[in-house]
Amino acid sequence: MKSRSWTGCPIRFGMGIFGDKWTLLVIRDLMFKGKRYYGEFTDPEENIASNVLADRLKKLEQNGIVTKQRDPEHLSKFIYELTDKGLDLMPVMLSIIDWAEKYDEVTEVPQDFIKELRRDRARFGKKLRTKLKKSRQSKLP
Amino acid sequence: MKSRSWTGCPIRFGMGIFGDKWTLLVIRDLMFKGKRYYGEFTDPEENIASNVLADRLKKLEQNGIVTKQRDPEHLSKFIYELTDKGLDLMPVMLSIIDWAEKYDEVTEVPQDFIKELRRDRARFGKKLRTKLKKSRQSKLP
Repeated sequence: MKSRSWTGCPIRFGMGIFGDKWTLLVIRDLMFKGKRYYGEFTDPEENIASNVLADRLKKLEQNGIVTKQRDPEHLSKFIYELTDKGLDLMPVMLSIIDWAEKYDEVTEVPQDFIKELRRDRARFGKKLRTKLKKSRQSKLP
Repeated sequence: MKSRSWTGCPIRFGMGIFGDKWTLLVIRDLMFKGKRYYGEFTDPEENIASNVLADRLKKLEQNGIVTKQRDPEHLSKFIYELTDKGLDLMPVMLSIIDWAEKYDEVTEVPQDFIKELRRDRARFGKKLRTKLKKSRQSKLP
């Protein structure tokens, strides 16, 4: 895009931040899989290139979606966490999961997850968010 | 991704279909802007390259998101339309719009649109979908 920034139009704004194959997979790991360390995002089956992962984490940090903080228990390591802006992507993620569960014939979405999601998406999103925040607190030293 | 297909995980499944900067912009044009012809997707301000647009439309067709049919009124032209699978992406689009309106300081989302969306997203999505289907029928010869 030469003559226009990626702001303004909401879909364009979103694509400027997570419009690539890998960024939402990193957000997925932070949001649903309890991952926090750099090494945890390199799922050997998904095979994200290390330079791509580093680039996406940096961009997520620059865009205020993720924070990177030194781990107080292991000073050589960093902890990545979703900000509120990142956690606010929960409805986007749940909408994609809902759609994919319907159309992917080999979906791995657990049935109890999708049932609860479809019963009341907003409520389910809030529940997951609260759970995530609590699990972080319990990990604090 | 070498050792695994893009199916299974729902976020990965979504990214395999619309995990790039341009695909959701094309879906946006079809879903919210009433665009149907190839030439209409080339917004001069967004400046999508013609080969990229052709590639994305082809992939959307292959993935069952979009149909391409000869225009009965102009036999040299083709009409692109969202399938039900494509229309089912409405909640994903509305979730992105909701998020972007909150965080993009120069958002162009109209206030009446976002108010109605936040009042009842599911209902608003259904209303937009019905409107889109009706507008298609009225264009039939």
